[in-house]
Amino acid sequence: MSERVKKYNEERERLNELVLSRDNLNIKRFYGLDSAIYRDGALDCKTKEMLGLVASLVLRCDDCITYHIIQAKEQGLNDDEFDEVMSVGLIVGGSITIPHIRRANDLWKELNS
Amino acid sequence: MSERVKKYNEERERLNELVLSRDNLNIKRFYGLDSAIYRDGALDCKTKEMLGLVASLVLRCDDCITYHIIQAKEQGLNDDEFDEVMSVGLIVGGSITIPHIRRANDLWKELNS
Amino acid sequence: MSERVKKYNEERERLNELVLSRDNLNIKRFYGLDSAIYRDGALDCKTKEMLGLVASLVLRCDDCITYHIIQAKEQGLNDDEFDEVMSVGLIVGGSITIPHIRRANDLWKELNS
Amino acid sequence: MSERVKKYNEERERLNELVLSRDNLNIKRFYGLDSAIYRDGALDCKTKEMLGLVASLVLRCDDCITYHIIQAKEQGLNDDEFDEVMSVGLIVGGSITIPHIRRANDLWKELNS
Amino acid sequence: MSERVKKYNEERERLNELVLSRDNLNIKRFYGLDSAIYRDGALDCKTKEMLGLVASLVLRCDDCITYHIIQAKEQGLNDDEFDEVMSVGLIVGGSITIPHIRRANDLWKELNS
Amino acid sequence: MSERVKKYNEERERLNELVLSRDNLNIKRFYGLDSAIYRDGALDCKTKEMLGLVASLVLRCDDCITYHIIQAKEQGLNDDEFDEVMSVGLIVGGSITIPHIRRANDLWKELNS
Repeated sequence: MSERVKKYNEERERLNELVLSRDNLNIKRFYGLDSAIYRDGALDCKTKEMLGLVASLVLRCDDCITYHIIQAKEQGLNDDEFDEVMSVGLIVGGSITIPHIRRANDLWKELNS
Repeated sequence: MSERVKKYNEERERLNELVLSRDNLNIKRFYGLDSAIYRDGALDCKTKEMLGLVASLVLRCDDCITYHIIQAKEQGLNDDEFDEVMSVGLIVGGSITIPHIRRANDLWKELNS
Repeated sequence: MSERVKKYNEERERLNELVLSRDNLNIKRFYGLDSAIYRDGALDCKTKEMLGLVASLVLRCDDCITYHIIQAKEQGLNDDEFDEVMSVGLIVGGSITIPHIRRANDLWKELNS
Repeated sequence: MSERVKKYNEERERLNELVLSRDNLNIKRFYGLDSAIYRDGALDCKTKEMLGLVASLVLRCDDCITYHIIQAKEQGLNDDEFDEVMSVGLIVGGSITIPHIRRANDLWKELNS
Repeated sequence: MSERVKKYNEERERLNELVLSRDNLNIKRFYGLDSAIYRDGALDCKTKEMLGLVASLVLRCDDCITYHIIQAKEQGLNDDEFDEVMSVGLIVGGSITIPHIRRANDLWKELNS
Repeated sequence: MSERVKKYNEERERLNELVLSRDNLNIKRFYGLDSAIYRDGALDCKTKEMLGLVASLVLRCDDCITYHIIQAKEQGLNDDEFDEVMSVGLIVGGSITIPHIRRANDLWKELNS
């Protein structure tokens, strides 16, 4: 795992623990539902991670893009599939997504080297 | 084909013809690229239509949702898969997507009856 | 209740029943969580409806605005409070929210006549 | 003026009067500022209407697009300029803007016939 | 005041001074209106800060979230109220708001320690 | 050129090279189209850069704002014009754009000193 991914994971974990240490039942329920939705079902987990990735891309959230790229890679997303998910996000969301696509490619390269 | 889908298709076609009848080369090039991106590649067309659908859902565009539902249905999207695409869009995009999910379900029912 | 509000409620109910008649556990869980979050808690229901209203306004969803206006009115939102919620949404979200503010005012007048 | 434009203008005026008939000083101030910003200055009104139009297009608000197209047409926007404003909005905002571009072209044709 | 909040405030002030040092009357008027809207009125300032906070959360602007959390804290927002504002933003805006909620919780902890 | 602009340009170039080094024809075609759209046509390049800038501002993408400010400056955008583009973006997009306007002013000052 690259240094950047390790740091991302640690910070994400630290903050999630902080959120979940609080007395906020409905936020905890949201977290639980969020996890449940990406599990294998009629669609497998890899497909769902691609769905989460393209949704994160058109909504332009770098943290979410990073998360779903890491997950999709673990589920076996390959190089050409990665490019095609990016291309759907780019055409739907427009050039405003390009800075995110640049950084996504940088991360993808890191995960594959 | 239901009356609503027929009317949607006719209006879409009428307006696309209007747009493409004009002297706007770059808009035509965008249209061409838009078509190319959803063709079978590393990901098959059905998967790409699901990606287009979830992107349209979180961006909350009824016309785009309608279009991708019709395309995905033609590519063989089944009932459970439809629900799971909706659920990813709902969790990522939040309750603000619910009115669109309601109408998407209405269309889906029509396409399946 | 005005004719428009009655029709809105009926269509909303019809479509919600359709969504919830399906075998989509996670979407049902989202609906349940959505209801739970607006109940009286540290903040009373009226305040939460104002929060839901301003969030719907800046995200520019007429269906959601309509819903939260009806709920907030039932919780006792008065005329001046309505204007102030609109003004916060307008300053945060900009003139792009004005068409929604116009229609919100139209509905508000109807609910108060 | 076409029937559609006349109806749009009448409804817009009716609702603006409703909003401005209320005791909401800050919303009135916003309306005043909104008008002031599009007046001739370092940039002429036509250029500002193009700016308002492209902003409305990428934010995907049909009412706002309609308004700025009518204004820009009155300021002398010509056919080729219209297409180029649309093309910038399309490339920045992506295919999710296409339904709005279709309707914008329909209105533009009406205004020019 | 924590180091992070102090730095945020200083940078915000430095840049606001830069913006307001320029010859841009309409931007100054917008700033003035923005301040006026959050003052006590039919709704008290604390409620308005909660409205500004939830609007900033669903629009996903960390700078704006930071600002409104600081203001709301000064107006007496307590721990449970903070969680409930977050929960409304989360359900309306979806999981795409989670990275912002994480950082908001981090700031909240800092302000309360 | 300031240090910040130089670093921005270098990082942008490094990442664009990475994206374009891949076997993703459709993303390359999008890049080509994106360049073509800002060239002189019925509207001159400077006007198009202002359109790109205001679109980037209301969509709140700092990277895109930075890019279009640099381009517009090279095309001769002057001080008053800069303020007026910002003011249109601010009124359309609301106070949520203010953090971006602050940083845009900081960059503008740098480019002019």
